[in-house]
Amino acid sequence: MALGRVQIEGVAPELDGGRFPVKRVIGDDLVVEADLFADGHDQIAAVLRYRPAGEAKWQETPMEPLPNDRWRASFPLEGLGRYQYSVAGWIDPFRTWRREFEKWVEAGDQVLMELRVGAELVEAAAERAEVSPGGLAPGDGELPNDPATQLRRWATRLRTWSADPSLEDDPSSLLGPDGPTKGELAALMARFPDRTGETRYGRELEVVVDRERARFSAWYEFFPRSTAPDSSEHGTFDDARRMLPYVREMGFDVVYLPPIHPVGRTNRKGPNNRRTAEAGDPGSPWAIGAKEGGHKSVDPRLGTLEDFRRFRAAAEAEGLEVALDIAYQCSPDHPYVEDHPEWFRTRPDGTIRYAENPPKKYEDIYPIDFETDRWPELWQELKSVFSFWADEGVRIFRVDNPHTKALPFWEWTIRELKETHPDLIFLSEAFTRPKMMYRLAKLGFTQSYTYFAWRNTKAELTSYLEELVQPPLSEHFRPNFWPNTPDILTEFLQTGGRPAFMLRLVLAATLSSNYGIYGPAFELLEAAPREPGSEEYLNSEKYELREWELDREDSLRDFIARVNRIRRENEAFHTNDTLSFHAVDNALILAYTKRPSGGGASILTVVNLDPHHVQSGWVDLDPDTVGISGNEAFQVHDLLGGGHYFWEGTRNFVQLDPHVSPAQIFQVVTQGRSERDFDPFA
Amino acid sequence: MALGRVQIEGVAPELDGGRFPVKRVIGDDLVVEADLFADGHDQIAAVLRYRPAGEAKWQETPMEPLPNDRWRASFPLEGLGRYQYSVAGWIDPFRTWRREFEKWVEAGDQVLMELRVGAELVEAAAERAEVSPGGLAPGDGELPNDPATQLRRWATRLRTWSADPSLEDDPSSLLGPDGPTKGELAALMARFPDRTGETRYGRELEVVVDRERARFSAWYEFFPRSTAPDSSEHGTFDDARRMLPYVREMGFDVVYLPPIHPVGRTNRKGPNNRRTAEAGDPGSPWAIGAKEGGHKSVDPRLGTLEDFRRFRAAAEAEGLEVALDIAYQCSPDHPYVEDHPEWFRTRPDGTIRYAENPPKKYEDIYPIDFETDRWPELWQELKSVFSFWADEGVRIFRVDNPHTKALPFWEWTIRELKETHPDLIFLSEAFTRPKMMYRLAKLGFTQSYTYFAWRNTKAELTSYLEELVQPPLSEHFRPNFWPNTPDILTEFLQTGGRPAFMLRLVLAATLSSNYGIYGPAFELLEAAPREPGSEEYLNSEKYELREWELDREDSLRDFIARVNRIRRENEAFHTNDTLSFHAVDNALILAYTKRPSGGGASILTVVNLDPHHVQSGWVDLDPDTVGISGNEAFQVHDLLGGGHYFWEGTRNFVQLDPHVSPAQIFQVVTQGRSERDFDPFA
Repeated sequence: MALGRVQIEGVAPELDGGRFPVKRVIGDDLVVEADLFADGHDQIAAVLRYRPAGEAKWQETPMEPLPNDRWRASFPLEGLGRYQYSVAGWIDPFRTWRREFEKWVEAGDQVLMELRVGAELVEAAAERAEVSPGGLAPGDGELPNDPATQLRRWATRLRTWSADPSLEDDPSSLLGPDGPTKGELAALMARFPDRTGETRYGRELEVVVDRERARFSAWYEFFPRSTAPDSSEHGTFDDARRMLPYVREMGFDVVYLPPIHPVGRTNRKGPNNRRTAEAGDPGSPWAIGAKEGGHKSVDPRLGTLEDFRRFRAAAEAEGLEVALDIAYQCSPDHPYVEDHPEWFRTRPDGTIRYAENPPKKYEDIYPIDFETDRWPELWQELKSVFSFWADEGVRIFRVDNPHTKALPFWEWTIRELKETHPDLIFLSEAFTRPKMMYRLAKLGFTQSYTYFAWRNTKAELTSYLEELVQPPLSEHFRPNFWPNTPDILTEFLQTGGRPAFMLRLVLAATLSSNYGIYGPAFELLEAAPREPGSEEYLNSEKYELREWELDREDSLRDFIARVNRIRRENEAFHTNDTLSFHAVDNALILAYTKRPSGGGASILTVVNLDPHHVQSGWVDLDPDTVGISGNEAFQVHDLLGGGHYFWEGTRNFVQLDPHVSPAQIFQVVTQGRSERDFDPFA
Repeated sequence: MALGRVQIEGVAPELDGGRFPVKRVIGDDLVVEADLFADGHDQIAAVLRYRPAGEAKWQETPMEPLPNDRWRASFPLEGLGRYQYSVAGWIDPFRTWRREFEKWVEAGDQVLMELRVGAELVEAAAERAEVSPGGLAPGDGELPNDPATQLRRWATRLRTWSADPSLEDDPSSLLGPDGPTKGELAALMARFPDRTGETRYGRELEVVVDRERARFSAWYEFFPRSTAPDSSEHGTFDDARRMLPYVREMGFDVVYLPPIHPVGRTNRKGPNNRRTAEAGDPGSPWAIGAKEGGHKSVDPRLGTLEDFRRFRAAAEAEGLEVALDIAYQCSPDHPYVEDHPEWFRTRPDGTIRYAENPPKKYEDIYPIDFETDRWPELWQELKSVFSFWADEGVRIFRVDNPHTKALPFWEWTIRELKETHPDLIFLSEAFTRPKMMYRLAKLGFTQSYTYFAWRNTKAELTSYLEELVQPPLSEHFRPNFWPNTPDILTEFLQTGGRPAFMLRLVLAATLSSNYGIYGPAFELLEAAPREPGSEEYLNSEKYELREWELDREDSLRDFIARVNRIRRENEAFHTNDTLSFHAVDNALILAYTKRPSGGGASILTVVNLDPHHVQSGWVDLDPDTVGISGNEAFQVHDLLGGGHYFWEGTRNFVQLDPHVSPAQIFQVVTQGRSERDFDPFA
């Protein structure tokens, strides 16, 4: 039994009934909507409440009514970390009085009495203003110096009017700008409401605020050990430093390195994942740990920790951020195995269980037992791996197979780590069932790998993207599109030739604001699988050193540089929120636009999904999402190929030769927008 | 930092994150689904937990896996009132072991060692069985008398096998029906799982279990005061008793009476809502309260409380249940006004505020102030009105304008009242904005009035019904369709003549499992509005006594009786869950089916929405929802008109003359189903 006549429901954003935070980036406004309503005809008022997590005091901003009992407000996300927010509403008798008073005045009925009712309401507000002269958070207007006195003055005015019988006969002057229902008094009264019967939404919701790179990033993965001038030698961090200008010129902003730790010797795998290694075979970087150390050590063949620091500093100087790969698994030689055998599962004969998926055995890997009796110590140690590298200045981690580790660990460790380093970014490398992938994002991962590599047709791409860019997924799951990885050489790339690489790159880079490639395999069009039907690379760098001829004439480096420059220069590509698809009368052509969220020219990307043949068709643009009127003439500038075209209306023709360029990225330039932009010869 | 590797999300049904209960009726099974999954390849097990609210002990039933990480179980709703339910899941190492063991056996690898692993798991289960031999709730199988001994025996068997090297060479016998992965051991192990790392879903959800009538009912509203043999006299309960056989013969099961309390005299309204009444004008039953009493009293003109008891008993004898109208508002003469002036709002001059909606004034009504300082006493008193009539045996209440009373009052009072009387049914008479209407249902109302009266076209009816019969609405909002009420004489009925009444009745009765009419105005085709454009009846019974000629030849009573008999005899009409629409190539014909939830013949209703002209068209039946194959021959029997038709395939012709019958209600009889049913001359 409790008062609280205002009902609050349908609060958005809200994930799983408030169980998980939503995600935004710094500088965003968090727009919050809710349904608020009360019985009867009384008017209500509402505020959005918010605070940085950990602060006791809530801030408040008024919510504005929309149609159909919906209300909206927003607050600025000015700092990294977590904010909490909620909604409150109350009956506002003065707002009700204003509305009804105006009707009584129009009807010329009981005006004097209603003025007395109003005076009572204003007097009560004056008393509240005396007690706490700060009142409710400002909204738009400024507060006068002495609001209580001001309110008392208004009350007197209302009482004087209520004693003037001539106003009963002709009350129309009361509806003027200086009347009691307009301007000053309304603003003052809104600041000193009676909130004793207020309803608070029963949940305090959270938003995690990340830095901009969480939402917009271009990743380049490479194996530093393949960068030695003499390809028979194991490359070092110093060698890898020479890759940085190359990566930077292509326009990437994150360089991601496979694990840099000492590699195990026991049961080391040979080239092409052969069960035995020859002397000199480098082993897989994911077989982590040797007598030289574990997850907090550097493979001595790459150099020292000092060398890594120099590499990281050099990357930073190039405007590149280093991302490390954290894979929680151990080679049999990892120091944990001797120091903490209790962190692993044993078999009845007392030996440690290596990884298995019957009938397959992975004798070079010991999985960690997250449910060991000593799990609290284990979890602290695992968390400290991140802390160690964070202390070394690393702020981005690509996490290997998080879906095979206890999920409560992730929720705990990411939350804890971000308390200290709210600028951390965690990329979840889970290729598994959808609910698990999405759950990892709910639990705290900043970005996620996706099924993009295997979505090739127009129907597949459209339905997948439409799922990703809308709530609930868009509230927490930030896709990172990779056309290839060291584990994934798709059949499409194996068989599609250079056009396939180009079109998959354009799709990744323009559909998703986060994307990455595994190079130099990608730009050098590496396409041979280990065996037919396999998605493994032949002679994969995972198991051997490779030499890459970066200056090869057919390299896609210039093409990639152009795409990355277009991404960077056009704000439309910095989020996925505005993505929308447009009909094309050819199933092999995909057309979509993105718009800068702050307004401005739309970018229309048109991709020929067929890497073999010229395709053409008519694109039916949705004028509203593109920002054109139904039948005007406008221009499209191909930012990729350089062409300028005059288009008219919503239906226009495109033709794409995959051997020239399988995609066009059009800036849409309407006449109204800028005369200069419209000059095709500018 | 906490273990609990199993993740639980997407629990259904769940309303607003568990804030509100869902609704079912007694005898239903509550089917609960949830997403459950864990990291890695370990197998999991899950239970649905449930208990009647108030009981400390949970019962459990195993959940079964569906595709895509979905799990399902159900529990029987055997009693009225509230049940709680939730979900728990845990890692099941034995299930994982079984699956992997079978693969090792097939691979002929490490079989003996795995048998030892299995033995250890079985021994641990035996220890658990010693501690609590009851184990997990049964699911399907019966538990042996001494499960611990049985498990020990199995452990020994596994150890014996593990010492037999011949099994390493030829382990195939281990996959037989007596092997460790099949039948008995699997069932036993499922009963004694290790649940120390169990995850419980963080919320305990609720379901309200009502009686069958909450879901399936046919209401008849009439004014007892219009039943006197001499129409100039005020009718009494004794007069009204004579209506009961008439109502019963039409096939209704609820008789609903407008307020039966003393009617105020001050500012009494005259016929057609005139501002002043003449001597002898009976006043509006909704102007409640006079010196003879208030909400717990009977209008002396109707009789005594004893007369009401006799009326109720007579209704019960006819198989009819009496529903009362509870309208929380007071005439100026209500005893509350003198005894509790603090329950009303006053104006500055000290007088009580009557109801207003400027510039309109309702001087005959004082609204109750639910926010009065003395609200706790007020709410208790208002609740006691329901208790009073419940003690008089009334179990159904139609609540007048609940959306103009404090909503927290409803949540509190309905919940409290149903603690004592879980068989209570509350019908919400709110015709207002959708979110408010739906919120009232969430807060506890059993059934709700709807927008049905104003949904006339195929598009309107289809989209409205599709919203109503699916979650989330179908979980808590039970529509009650009324083609007319004393307040609502739609333009469609005003202008459509007899066919309009017939088709609106069929729509109400067959689209919605709960429906009602206001009679005898309905069956006697009363169609004159107070003035053009008004939905008020001319000479409305709300303000004057009426005489009804029940035996008029054009009465719809026989037609209504037929429709109600069809509803009663065909289980398909007892819920809305299976409603689905079928395409017709004529926008004026609506076709839809319902199926009995337990299986059986579908009922196809075809309605001509045009009350003026013959309409015909081809119905495209969706074979799956109708239960026919794509091209077989079948029969349809018109339960309403009596015709039998041979149909073939999914596309069939219908033609409806509104002046004969604007609707056909077909039982679909397929050949396979019953030879007898297929005989058209049976």
